[in-house]
Amino acid sequence: MTEKKLPDVNLLSLAKKVGTPFNIYDGKAIAENAKALYDAFSWVDGGFTDFFAVKALPNINILRLLASLGFGADCSSLPELILAKQAGIEPEKIVFTSNDTPDEEFKAAYDMGAILNLDDISHIDAVIRSCGRLPKTLCFRYNPGPERTGNAIIGNPVEAKYGLTKVQLVEAYKRAKSLGVETFGLHTMVASNELDPTYIVETARMIFSLVDLLYKEAGVRISFVDLGGGVGIPYRKSDDAISFSFLGSEIRKLYESMIVEKGYGPVKVTFEMGRAITGPFGYLVSTVRHVCRKYKDYVGLDACMADLMRPALYGAYHHITVLGKEDMAEDHVYDVTGSLCENNDKFAIDRSLPEIEEGDVLVIHDTGAHGHSMGFNYNAKLRHAEYLIGLDGRISRIRRNETFEDYVRTMLYDPEEVM
Amino acid sequence: MTEKKLPDVNLLSLAKKVGTPFNIYDGKAIAENAKALYDAFSWVDGGFTDFFAVKALPNINILRLLASLGFGADCSSLPELILAKQAGIEPEKIVFTSNDTPDEEFKAAYDMGAILNLDDISHIDAVIRSCGRLPKTLCFRYNPGPERTGNAIIGNPVEAKYGLTKVQLVEAYKRAKSLGVETFGLHTMVASNELDPTYIVETARMIFSLVDLLYKEAGVRISFVDLGGGVGIPYRKSDDAISFSFLGSEIRKLYESMIVEKGYGPVKVTFEMGRAITGPFGYLVSTVRHVCRKYKDYVGLDACMADLMRPALYGAYHHITVLGKEDMAEDHVYDVTGSLCENNDKFAIDRSLPEIEEGDVLVIHDTGAHGHSMGFNYNAKLRHAEYLIGLDGRISRIRRNETFEDYVRTMLYDPEEVM
Repeated sequence: MTEKKLPDVNLLSLAKKVGTPFNIYDGKAIAENAKALYDAFSWVDGGFTDFFAVKALPNINILRLLASLGFGADCSSLPELILAKQAGIEPEKIVFTSNDTPDEEFKAAYDMGAILNLDDISHIDAVIRSCGRLPKTLCFRYNPGPERTGNAIIGNPVEAKYGLTKVQLVEAYKRAKSLGVETFGLHTMVASNELDPTYIVETARMIFSLVDLLYKEAGVRISFVDLGGGVGIPYRKSDDAISFSFLGSEIRKLYESMIVEKGYGPVKVTFEMGRAITGPFGYLVSTVRHVCRKYKDYVGLDACMADLMRPALYGAYHHITVLGKEDMAEDHVYDVTGSLCENNDKFAIDRSLPEIEEGDVLVIHDTGAHGHSMGFNYNAKLRHAEYLIGLDGRISRIRRNETFEDYVRTMLYDPEEVM
Repeated sequence: MTEKKLPDVNLLSLAKKVGTPFNIYDGKAIAENAKALYDAFSWVDGGFTDFFAVKALPNINILRLLASLGFGADCSSLPELILAKQAGIEPEKIVFTSNDTPDEEFKAAYDMGAILNLDDISHIDAVIRSCGRLPKTLCFRYNPGPERTGNAIIGNPVEAKYGLTKVQLVEAYKRAKSLGVETFGLHTMVASNELDPTYIVETARMIFSLVDLLYKEAGVRISFVDLGGGVGIPYRKSDDAISFSFLGSEIRKLYESMIVEKGYGPVKVTFEMGRAITGPFGYLVSTVRHVCRKYKDYVGLDACMADLMRPALYGAYHHITVLGKEDMAEDHVYDVTGSLCENNDKFAIDRSLPEIEEGDVLVIHDTGAHGHSMGFNYNAKLRHAEYLIGLDGRISRIRRNETFEDYVRTMLYDPEEVM
């Protein structure tokens, strides 16, 4: 992963010009990071694609940038499929990794030519019911259950609602083959925000061994493997980023011995990384409204958990920089809060920072994934704008602020009697 | 609190007619429950009002119903203030209980004639800056800090971002009085979803004792007390509902001895209950899309955590009824899931239910507060309609389903260059 540094633009000037809070994404850094990933997997004879997890940063302008950099899209709802298509991503680079899927979404993905990645053995019948037949290309999601421990965040695979067991997997591929499917993919997703690269490498080992098993037991050749996402990012300065080149070279060794040498190649290798692509290159910029002294000292921002849920939801750490005070001693301790009427609306608890005054502009780091997209309207809080630093260094607004009219848009001032 | 039972309408017919999922609120039951609350506090010589916590169920049609039943509104953002005003709630029944408040929201509340409830001593200056002066009526929020333990959900008051310490409180009232404030309120909020009525009674005791202290130490007479919300509801069948009449009679005893006998009466008594007013009388109705057998058995609904966040967010229990199978043995164990691509999108884990088939319609109970209003659009999931059973028994749609167009409304397909 590319080393992260504050973008090369004057954020204070921008904050003054457009008003805070806002999220800003560094397109140049995303492009460099993308290149590092694609370079690390350039050896794959079957080809390499990252299906960007749209839910991480579902803005059409981000998807267009990623499409230009060679990315596909991992979608798990109809609106995400529509966005990916609108962004110009080719259908064969769109994977529909859904669960508990409605028939109409199977049909939409099928009609669009996206890759269907089935979450359950019963979905074979659901696809036939929805689409009239199975597509020529089909993928299944594997859940290793007790064979894998999962990581802390995504939880134990045995408790996961996703995927097929090994027994089901063999049966599913046999059945799909008998029903005319010609090209097979194999997917798994067993980690979330994992910082240990060996865990990701072990996922490749698990999947490559299934390529062998499925050939022997189901008589199918796997054309592409989708190793899922889950590659973490260093939210804390003390965390080490995962090295794409390490990941690439370790997985290459396994690919050589488990795929090439056994005659299963070429196999296309794909991922569904989202966070690892854009996460470190997004920033929530917010102004200090109040500094309050109660039983503790509080810094109140103009952003709130509607703009970034992760700290409130997961107790997640996000690094904070006070613009213009980067070189001052961090000798004050604050809770950094938003204005939502929930006591967990805090971006940081007991955080050492330079002395803060009203009007200071803070940068909350690593909001380029699962940031704006997770925001809610609870407490009638409105969500805020997004900006993108383009490859040419120019800054564009790619989402406007929400308004009261947006907030009440679906509410019916004149109720409609139905029964 | 009024005893809760499924509303007297044919939910299966409604589900068939309008499609699922949807939330439905039982206006008749809400009205009965409201009457029970107002009856229990009819003895208050200074008057009684519940400022309904708008964030619990921010639909104008609910607010109109509550206004007709005598309720005021507890608002903590500008859009909530606008909604309360649009619903026809009189300004003197609107309390603006905000924190980390922007100047323009103080100004809007002031201009509207709403009661300003200040969260911090520094907000006296913020109001003067925003509004030019202090209003004639002013309220402050008390945080008891180490004097109160708080309850499990809202957390320890010492760690809470809200309110003034006792020392600050005395200083704040003195200053407000010297600046021309004539009518004083006193507020606290130290519980959330509390099922022990004595905890609420103790909050009244704490506040009544402050009425005495503020008269003696700050020379102000408190005209109204706002005991906040936090009255819980019995999510589990084994939980006991809080009895409004018990609450009323216990608080009455304290009022007699601590207010009337000491010559501080009449004092108006107010609450900010939201959940206890509408929570039990809302239902999320959803259809089973899939029944899947993996390492466990899963029921997949057409609702997801975008429709109800509490189970995923807090591990909260919500009772589930399978329509038409109420009398069958609950001899099957399922995880009941939504389709969001997060493993915590589960409405219930290891829940005993009757055997479930695709097409069954499930009712998830107690979604009348903090249900729809907490929903997000993560994973591009769209939020769903709301219906209200009116006092006449007729059912009206009071919110429509969200569409793709709603979802992308703030996104700019043509980005605007700003720098």
